[in-house]
Amino acid sequence: MALYHPQLNSHGELKHLLTIEGLPAAILTQILDKAEDYVSVSDQEIKKLPVLTGKSVFNLFFENSTRTRTTFEIAAKRLSADVINLNIGASSTSKGETLLDTIHNLEAMHADMFVVRHAESGAPFLIAKHCKPSVSVVNAGDGRHAHPTQALLDMYTIRHYKKEFQNLRVAVVGDILHSRVARSQIHALTTLGVPEVRVIGPKTLLPKDIEKMGVQVYHDMRAGLKDVDVVIMLRLQNERMNGALLPSAQEYFKYYGLTLDKLARAKPDAIVMHPGPMNRGVEIDSAVADGAQSVILPQVTFGIAVRMAVMSILAGNK
Amino acid sequence: MALYHPQLNSHGELKHLLTIEGLPAAILTQILDKAEDYVSVSDQEIKKLPVLTGKSVFNLFFENSTRTRTTFEIAAKRLSADVINLNIGASSTSKGETLLDTIHNLEAMHADMFVVRHAESGAPFLIAKHCKPSVSVVNAGDGRHAHPTQALLDMYTIRHYKKEFQNLRVAVVGDILHSRVARSQIHALTTLGVPEVRVIGPKTLLPKDIEKMGVQVYHDMRAGLKDVDVVIMLRLQNERMNGALLPSAQEYFKYYGLTLDKLARAKPDAIVMHPGPMNRGVEIDSAVADGAQSVILPQVTFGIAVRMAVMSILAGNK
Amino acid sequence: MALYHPQLNSHGELKHLLTIEGLPAAILTQILDKAEDYVSVSDQEIKKLPVLTGKSVFNLFFENSTRTRTTFEIAAKRLSADVINLNIGASSTSKGETLLDTIHNLEAMHADMFVVRHAESGAPFLIAKHCKPSVSVVNAGDGRHAHPTQALLDMYTIRHYKKEFQNLRVAVVGDILHSRVARSQIHALTTLGVPEVRVIGPKTLLPKDIEKMGVQVYHDMRAGLKDVDVVIMLRLQNERMNGALLPSAQEYFKYYGLTLDKLARAKPDAIVMHPGPMNRGVEIDSAVADGAQSVILPQVTFGIAVRMAVMSILAGNK
Repeated sequence: MALYHPQLNSHGELKHLLTIEGLPAAILTQILDKAEDYVSVSDQEIKKLPVLTGKSVFNLFFENSTRTRTTFEIAAKRLSADVINLNIGASSTSKGETLLDTIHNLEAMHADMFVVRHAESGAPFLIAKHCKPSVSVVNAGDGRHAHPTQALLDMYTIRHYKKEFQNLRVAVVGDILHSRVARSQIHALTTLGVPEVRVIGPKTLLPKDIEKMGVQVYHDMRAGLKDVDVVIMLRLQNERMNGALLPSAQEYFKYYGLTLDKLARAKPDAIVMHPGPMNRGVEIDSAVADGAQSVILPQVTFGIAVRMAVMSILAGNK
Repeated sequence: MALYHPQLNSHGELKHLLTIEGLPAAILTQILDKAEDYVSVSDQEIKKLPVLTGKSVFNLFFENSTRTRTTFEIAAKRLSADVINLNIGASSTSKGETLLDTIHNLEAMHADMFVVRHAESGAPFLIAKHCKPSVSVVNAGDGRHAHPTQALLDMYTIRHYKKEFQNLRVAVVGDILHSRVARSQIHALTTLGVPEVRVIGPKTLLPKDIEKMGVQVYHDMRAGLKDVDVVIMLRLQNERMNGALLPSAQEYFKYYGLTLDKLARAKPDAIVMHPGPMNRGVEIDSAVADGAQSVILPQVTFGIAVRMAVMSILAGNK
Repeated sequence: MALYHPQLNSHGELKHLLTIEGLPAAILTQILDKAEDYVSVSDQEIKKLPVLTGKSVFNLFFENSTRTRTTFEIAAKRLSADVINLNIGASSTSKGETLLDTIHNLEAMHADMFVVRHAESGAPFLIAKHCKPSVSVVNAGDGRHAHPTQALLDMYTIRHYKKEFQNLRVAVVGDILHSRVARSQIHALTTLGVPEVRVIGPKTLLPKDIEKMGVQVYHDMRAGLKDVDVVIMLRLQNERMNGALLPSAQEYFKYYGLTLDKLARAKPDAIVMHPGPMNRGVEIDSAVADGAQSVILPQVTFGIAVRMAVMSILAGNK
């Protein structure tokens, strides 16, 4: 008898995409391979495929994020789905309806897919656990927990530029503590066989026991960037900049902002990534963001293809 | 010479759907029959029909309601219409434009259908009266007056489970006074030939002279539920819960909240309905809401089909 | 070697639509001719053409305008584009991202067209200057600077009713100083060969040196309307009504509100235009707005066709 798996169906296929943690490398690779097909579609004159014709994709954003919502909306529309955007904070919740009542209602409208963004960690799991077999759930970011499509597009970007994962040194830099992006990236990197994953940041912004995730910890950025192939910068949330954890944005930039000077410690062909939106002059200098090693805009392009890949794979695994 | 009818064209066909009051039973039945076709469409792999291809449906929500707007948006998209969502409170009205100027402007953009939600009773009538013959208006809830598509989906649900209307006892329970849903339900039930319609609620939440609508009045819920076939619960608006009309939500639940115990007074095969969103523990107990007699989620499913039916009939009666 | 032109490509074709100023008459006429085709499409049963199938049109509204956004959304959908509405004020900007970072991100999602509304004059130029060759920009109103599609639909309306431009007297009435609409109209009228363009308004609402735009200035409305063929009224912004520039809305109406009495000074077949939304009783009397000479609603209809024409011409000039 198969054990219950929150994301896989009884054939071991992807049923929901909730977190990178616990997903086999083969499934990550399947998504990256499928995304490769879609990257070429986006370059074509007519960027539309009939993969999700007649399917209803609901963007359920309990936490506002125009940018992320837009990427999913474009991805779904390029696959010919009907897309319904729901900013739930502003509606049912304020009427006192429970999360699961809202979900069951939308299900009853014959939803095929929920793309869920929620401020509370675990909310997409709760939804996936209670929804009908005909519905797939994609986590578009939950609390500090996970942001799997961001991690997948990052993996796509790395594979695109570095061809493989087995011989890489990758550094993730910044506020690891509050970052769902970092958590998903680290799981993806280790699952795909990156032998050396480093995290770099001040003690106040690194989780205790982060080493247990299989990473090496650096507090000194110059040491941490030495000879890496990939530098992944994290966004510093505005609310951290003048709080108890950090003296100031200026101070942060001095020690952990990526400058050309610090980047020179990495390999000459190292690539620089950032999930956006960037705080120029805080975590990254414009000379790096717009420089020759930056692959920040290709990340966005690959992000659409990766989300198309996830949606199309989920739709096929009913 | 034909008399002016606000909802019917000169052939006696549905031109606008503004209220259930005054609609012949044959038209209600036509909508329910058409909806039956669409229920099966929603179950298909590709839930899309070309009925409204190239038509422009405007959701004009002068009062915010994400849930209701979503059901109309889905219904229109499944019929292949172009859907434009307008939250009018936030735009033209604030610029001092009159309601009719707004409507004539949208008409001039070759709108085919207006789905109107408005806090003032009668607003959809005003719009229907002044718009071009090429435009149909659907009332998606106006003030305390009417919510005809909700009543129609409720009738669909009753017919689905009870097969006919001629031998039923139906109870509508709760805040009848402020409820456009209740008003539309009562008109639909009596028009379709339900011989016994009961309303149950505290005196402060029942309109004076409600008996003139052809219903029997009960203030005691146990007496009112005795031997009924259908129990329709109403949502208690939050703003009523601690006002002059009611002592408290707890007190309300004690007397008018639907529990398994009270439900046992109804027939054993009685169904329980609710328009949503539910206040669990206020007007309905979770054991009932999630129980074997609840048909609350099927109501939602039928609601999409009923809205598709209304839109497709209106589009055909130009 | 061709000089850099912000709106034309190296073949002299329209690449972006940013302003009327500097566009050759041939291009304005090309747009009006193309719009004529689309006017008839809007009258058809199925108002949909496959011109932009698979293209992604982004409505980037940094300044809120439901009405203008709606016209572009309808136009794009009737050409079968995928339309993404972004209210940018509420998202990236609040996250501290720069305008160009936002634009480059959307570009990286394979956007084909940006429809831009911005409170700052020149913002659409900045975007057009920095975006990829594959993207076209349409200015949907920038600060006090320009609103070219409004001016084009006005020209379409004039040509529709007056057949030509070469023998007309046209008056633009109201707050010229703060009006991007007026600026674009004046450029369009003079470019298309209207021999006499008049502006009418109080000194406080007329720019200094306005004569340099090739117009005649009138402060007295009766004198200014004498024998004109076309009267174009401007909207008086609410914020002007009780400010330093005007004593009151009543006073304004007395001197510059268009009444039947004042309109009688114009030619008997003069048409009356207004970009909407109207302040009835401030800049225009209802008897005129709803009168026989008003072509205000046809303007709206032509506006959809003109925007379809602009989008389809831009898409063809890649």
